[in-house]
Parts: sequence; C-alpha cells; structure tokens
Amino acid sequence: MAFSPALTRLIDALRVLPGVGSKSAQRMAFHLLQREREGGRYLAQAVEQAMASVQHCKACRMFTDSELCDICSNERRDATLVCVVESPADVMAIEQNTDFTGRYFVLLGRLSPIDGVGPSELGLDILRSRLADGSVEEVILATGATVEGEATAQYVADLARQHDAGISRIAHGVPIGGELEYVDSGTLSQAFSGRRPF
Amino acid sequence: MAFSPALTRLIDALRVLPGVGSKSAQRMAFHLLQREREGGRYLAQAVEQAMASVQHCKACRMFTDSELCDICSNERRDATLVCVVESPADVMAIEQNTDFTGRYFVLLGRLSPIDGVGPSELGLDILRSRLADGSVEEVILATGATVEGEATAQYVADLARQHDAGISRIAHGVPIGGELEYVDSGTLSQAFSGRRPF
Repeated sequence: MAFSPALTRLIDALRVLPGVGSKSAQRMAFHLLQREREGGRYLAQAVEQAMASVQHCKACRMFTDSELCDICSNERRDATLVCVVESPADVMAIEQNTDFTGRYFVLLGRLSPIDGVGPSELGLDILRSRLADGSVEEVILATGATVEGEATAQYVADLARQHDAGISRIAHGVPIGGELEYVDSGTLSQAFSGRRPF
Repeated sequence: MAFSPALTRLIDALRVLPGVGSKSAQRMAFHLLQREREGGRYLAQAVEQAMASVQHCKACRMFTDSELCDICSNERRDATLVCVVESPADVMAIEQNTDFTGRYFVLLGRLSPIDGVGPSELGLDILRSRLADGSVEEVILATGATVEGEATAQYVADLARQHDAGISRIAHGVPIGGELEYVDSGTLSQAFSGRRPF
C-alpha cells in the first residue's frame, strides 16, 4: 500500500528543496493538506510565477524580474564602485547593514575547480566587460573568508588589475562585540596581521 | 532595497512549510532559482494538483484521491478489525512493518482541549457510525504513547465499549534491540507493569 498518486507526487516534489529528505517532505505534505490548503495554493502560484519571471540582472547577475535590477537601474547609485559578492543574500546583508551606495556584482558561487565552477560559471566575462568600459574606479572584494572565497577574490583582483581599477578587500578580524578569548585562531591571527595605526 | 516582487513572494510563500523560517525560505528560493528551475516547476504543479485533488477517505479519513482510500475499497481487507491511529504516517508505518490486514481509522490529531481539538475535530462521529452498523469486532488502539495519545485511546475505547466492540491496545515496552540500561524510566516501568506469562 502506498499513498495516493497525488500525495506521492507531492512528497517527491518537495524533495527538490535543499535540506528536505523524505521524512521532512512527508511532514510538509501532511501539514499543507491538513492545515494549509490555502497556503499551499499560494505556494504553488508563487513558485510557478518565480520560476517563470525571475531572471538574472544583465549587469550584476542579481535576481530581478526585469532586465536590470533595482540597484543597477538606479542612477543615484555610484557606478564607479563595484562590490563583488558570492550570493544575492550577501547583497541583502550589505544593503541592510551598511551605507554602501555603489553597485554590485554577484558571482552566484565561488571558484571551485573540483565542482566544475570556473570563471565562466561565475559570469566573470560580464564583470570584465564592465571593467573594460573604464567606468569602474574601485572593486571591493567581499567574497567569503574561506579558502575558495580567497581564491575567488584573488582571481577577481587580477582581473581588476588588468583594467587598472583600484582594488580593496573588506576587513577581516575580531567581530564587534566579540571576546578575544572566544575568537577562533584564524580570525585572531588575521586580526593581528591586519592591524592598523590607531 | 528589497528582492524583486516575484522573489519576495516566493520567499514569503515558502514559509507556510513547517519548520521553515525566513533564512531557510531564502535559501530554498535561491536554490530553486539557481539550480532547480525544472524541479521548481514540478513542485508548483505537484502542490497545486495535490491541494485540488487530495481529500480524506469518507470511511477512515486517510488521504486519498477518491471517495474511499485503497484500503477501505479493498474487499480483501478485514473490515471487522479497525486500527485507530493519529496520522496518515502511522498508517504507512504499520503497513510497511506489520502484517496487519484489517482497516484503519485516522484521527488526524489527538484530543487536546487546550488546542481546541475535541472529538468532532477527530472525526469520531464517522467512527461511531462505523461502530454502530455492528460490523466492527475489534478496535485496536494505536495512538501515541503520550499523555494526549493515552487520553485519546481512552476516549475511543469508551466509544467502542458503547457499541460492544472488543478493544485492544498495541503493546508498549522495551524496544526490540534496546538495552535495558538505556531505556527511559517510563518505558521500563511500563514494561514491568505490562509483563506477560513467558
């Protein structure tokens, strides 16, 4: 005996979501069917519409419903500053927590030859053409502080250097509010080697 | 700055799923958009179809695409035995792991007056009418071994008694393969008070 075809298909389909295995998928399906039919219908529509209409910004690869994202089409954003990040979530984090007024370039990943992610998967030809037109004065590297993030930053820096753009890397060190005692060794040694005049 | 409308709506809609907060919803949305457009479309269709076609079996409240579920419409299943469980997942667990050949009644919950779950929310009027026609000889109580599960079992037992049906409760005790040392105290005391001639 198995679940009905529509329910089996629902459980199976929910497994495309990251971190959702068969038990969670079953729990989600039961929840939708027992308590959230309306929410389920809303979910179906939202997923369908997003799959059809969300695309990548032609200039920065951010998710958008149009050719250009809100930031790239905003004339008041400083086009001479380009902050390079790994994911759309990073853009949101920077927008919500800093007063950065430049533009972005979203790699949608990081260099990882083992996983087949090279410069073209990261859309670096698009970034190259933005650099080539000479309007970018500074590239701010905001990729993650991981081995792959550093390698990616290095690669993007080389690219920027070829086009005579200035290059900076966001600061890494002890987090604000962090107690030295509890900071991991890599961060602490980075904080020392990156010390600045006070 | 916010995400595009379609993306914002997608993230918001994913939060109807149980256990999914705003961070997970964002991660799921990015995953679908970056790597699983096809899977996303399949998900949208599966959810929509399930919301429209999955209903509850008229006899046992199991999820089904028809009036009666596969078990209730199977003449070879013993209609004199009715196993009462809390959820559709329990039916699947029993079907997959036991040789029970009777039928089921799915409460879709357990008695919990605090949460407003009383006998009518559990469909007990449907069970009552199945008992009233006299075909049920034994009600097997397979609700959970929790306080609410026990209270629910007690209530269903009273109902069965009123209709002169036999009543049994699935056994509770030390799990097979379990070391006594690691069994919790409630289970162990249950195993002692429920000991049987060897």
